[in-house]
Amino acid sequence: MFGARCLLRALRSCSSAPCPRHRPAARVSVRGALGVQNANGERVTVQGWIRSVRSQKEVLFLHVNDGSSLESLQVVADSSFDSRELAFGSSVEVQGQLVKSPSKKQNVELKAEKIEVVGNCDAKAFPFKYKERHPLEYLRQYPHLRCRTNILGSILRVRSEATAAIHSFFKDSGFVHIHTPVITSNDCEGAGELFQVEPSSKIKVPEENFFNIPVFLTVSGQLHLEVMSGAFTQVFTFGPTFRAENSQSRRHLAEFYMVEAEISFLESLQDLMQVMESLFKTTAMTVLSNCPKDVELCHKFIAPGQKDRLEHMLKNNFLIISYTEAVEILKQASQNFTFTPEWGADLHTEHEKYLVKHCGDIPVFVINYPRALKPFYMRDNEDGPQHTVAAVDLLVPGVGELFGGSLREERCHFLEQRLARLGLTEAYQWYLDLRRFGSVPHGGFGMGFERYLQCILGIDNIKDVIPFPRFTHSCLL
Amino acid sequence: MFGARCLLRALRSCSSAPCPRHRPAARVSVRGALGVQNANGERVTVQGWIRSVRSQKEVLFLHVNDGSSLESLQVVADSSFDSRELAFGSSVEVQGQLVKSPSKKQNVELKAEKIEVVGNCDAKAFPFKYKERHPLEYLRQYPHLRCRTNILGSILRVRSEATAAIHSFFKDSGFVHIHTPVITSNDCEGAGELFQVEPSSKIKVPEENFFNIPVFLTVSGQLHLEVMSGAFTQVFTFGPTFRAENSQSRRHLAEFYMVEAEISFLESLQDLMQVMESLFKTTAMTVLSNCPKDVELCHKFIAPGQKDRLEHMLKNNFLIISYTEAVEILKQASQNFTFTPEWGADLHTEHEKYLVKHCGDIPVFVINYPRALKPFYMRDNEDGPQHTVAAVDLLVPGVGELFGGSLREERCHFLEQRLARLGLTEAYQWYLDLRRFGSVPHGGFGMGFERYLQCILGIDNIKDVIPFPRFTHSCLL
Repeated sequence: MFGARCLLRALRSCSSAPCPRHRPAARVSVRGALGVQNANGERVTVQGWIRSVRSQKEVLFLHVNDGSSLESLQVVADSSFDSRELAFGSSVEVQGQLVKSPSKKQNVELKAEKIEVVGNCDAKAFPFKYKERHPLEYLRQYPHLRCRTNILGSILRVRSEATAAIHSFFKDSGFVHIHTPVITSNDCEGAGELFQVEPSSKIKVPEENFFNIPVFLTVSGQLHLEVMSGAFTQVFTFGPTFRAENSQSRRHLAEFYMVEAEISFLESLQDLMQVMESLFKTTAMTVLSNCPKDVELCHKFIAPGQKDRLEHMLKNNFLIISYTEAVEILKQASQNFTFTPEWGADLHTEHEKYLVKHCGDIPVFVINYPRALKPFYMRDNEDGPQHTVAAVDLLVPGVGELFGGSLREERCHFLEQRLARLGLTEAYQWYLDLRRFGSVPHGGFGMGFERYLQCILGIDNIKDVIPFPRFTHSCLL
Repeated sequence: MFGARCLLRALRSCSSAPCPRHRPAARVSVRGALGVQNANGERVTVQGWIRSVRSQKEVLFLHVNDGSSLESLQVVADSSFDSRELAFGSSVEVQGQLVKSPSKKQNVELKAEKIEVVGNCDAKAFPFKYKERHPLEYLRQYPHLRCRTNILGSILRVRSEATAAIHSFFKDSGFVHIHTPVITSNDCEGAGELFQVEPSSKIKVPEENFFNIPVFLTVSGQLHLEVMSGAFTQVFTFGPTFRAENSQSRRHLAEFYMVEAEISFLESLQDLMQVMESLFKTTAMTVLSNCPKDVELCHKFIAPGQKDRLEHMLKNNFLIISYTEAVEILKQASQNFTFTPEWGADLHTEHEKYLVKHCGDIPVFVINYPRALKPFYMRDNEDGPQHTVAAVDLLVPGVGELFGGSLREERCHFLEQRLARLGLTEAYQWYLDLRRFGSVPHGGFGMGFERYLQCILGIDNIKDVIPFPRFTHSCLL
């Protein structure tokens, strides 16, 4: 299957004249076969899993899928093939000729000359049934098999495309990719919800601690990225992050992916928000253009109306309001909130939802938060009695907080004061060094990748947009 | 700095006619400025860190670097600028005109009109000295600053390029990218060297185990990839993996990156080795073509002769020998080994080195290892008294084992027998399911990414090719 592009090229070059019979059939992916224009009897071999079997008087129709696309390839065989062997879920290798299909449903079909069952599938024991559409909750019980369904197949292909699009976005913009560490001895935000790492009890290490100090799973690569933006100006990372939150919510996982960027010589939230909005939109456009059918499946069957909602987000400029304005809007709302909105208090999910709705379901940046709410590294706005920092969150329809970012405090004496007050001066000497030696104004952000997928596809539960979800009480496989 | 491409384009369009004075100077990266052909007084702003200062009678020469390339931009200023302010390591913003350089060393230089020191650098406290070449061991003490040196800058730019090249290689070949989990409840190979994960002691969770079962940091994404290759045919992952090995060797880390691929409908080691060789060579060629100067720096100053060694690897077909042949070669060697070579015993580093040398310093695949040496999932060759499995390791000059791979046992009854003998039947029911429902022949491999970088750049110690190395007794930052 490897080198499908070469094979396809070979296939195209032979499609002007029918290949001689003795020529070995080229192995081609389902996507490759479906992409052949003006099929003219090209001999190919296709391998995949049977998605449906329909037997008529003298003809047998199979749909074969290999995960290269949502669409399956229709295989047409005469009734001499034993349809009992060709069960839903079985793996097959089909040799035959690619021909123009008489049906309007597809351009191409494969006229089978030889069908070999590679691996049987016991339909009775197989948890998914032919022609049945299983709820996502049901599929979640089978993390080792659910990727074989149309819906999880589409979601995970979109995830793969979005991953590639994000890498391209940053590379094309001149960012250097950095693998920030997973195991770390600093806890970034002083948050308590950390996983601790220790050698398994089976191991004998002379010292008590493998690393001599307590270490944790990273909650953010930001501080490490700041190190790197001091050398490469523009850097990004895209990796796993962890929170030991005791939450079963549809927006939280214990292990999730973050896209984080850090940019030196950046002096305003405006410039930062431009990168955030551009990342959001460019990635979505790339995904829509590269796997339209996969996106369509989600929009059609899982989240009706989501197509329009996404278009609405993509064609409008994201809005910007200050935290202070946000609180005013919430105070004037006719809605009764569980948490009374008040300047100085965190925005809760109910508030985020209201704000996005208030903004006409357009993503909205909320900027300049109370200093007391935010971590030590955010840049002081020095704005008098209310005292805010240059922080920014992006709220989006359906999901709430999608991005968080800020300008970082690059002024050594400001940072020293804040660290001293927190009793962290000694631990963060290295971080202060970044300000002692050629400090520059800079800022950055993090985007929750799973939430991003939820937002563009309209998937309600975060557990359905990651291959193997990890959350409280669940770590299957 | 973001959107440098657009700015460059703007720059190019104005380079035919000199820009009017009042036009704001376009911000451009050092790489962008150096790439301007036939510079003709374009007004630009460049930001970066001072790498050198040289003051002559009436002129001041600065070299400014922003990490976008190894090369710095030469800034020429008249002596009215205060050179005391412009110290090594300081950050600056320079406005001026790009002009053709009279020197042969560069095409372009920046005639400064305005130089602003953004952040000072206390040269006395800064651990790196102007014009001094510090050993890699020395730099390792400063994980937060070493990326600002030429050598670490080059290595990490190469790492970033290689990462992108690997993603492209697989995408272009039709592979779906999968984020395999970091936290896992299975230990893949039954290896003992695992890190265990638990919520930090600060957290109160009702249950003793956050996940109800003991969980570990992944040692390989293979089993999870096998799940996915059963749906998408060709899949890959590129993420962190962990070993709690008590090793201070120059080839081991506690946290390192692996590139892993899994391919369905793959029936021979030959086909697998073709993908491995292609990944090795395509990635190297892309890196050589995209950042030749960075590679050259390593080859010139760190590993003399490495340029030729790499070319030798790239232009020759990799060799293939069986494990049995390898043992024969070792037995006939005149060299005295610490571990006597013997059929049935593991190959040690000294053996790997000898074999690669014996093969003329060309990477060599060693295939078909004794079944007793390898994990349960490798495909049984059913080859009589000696009994081997379809495993493959790739040995490369300087590094030793770079890839490990195998065909996987896709025959349910073989796998059941092996799992039963190991007492793992219950734990691996899900893995057996993959063979019960549409099983296919398949295989895959993993490549140690840091070792790959060591191999192409000639870097002796693995700690120098990863941004923040983690190993026994060391987890800085």
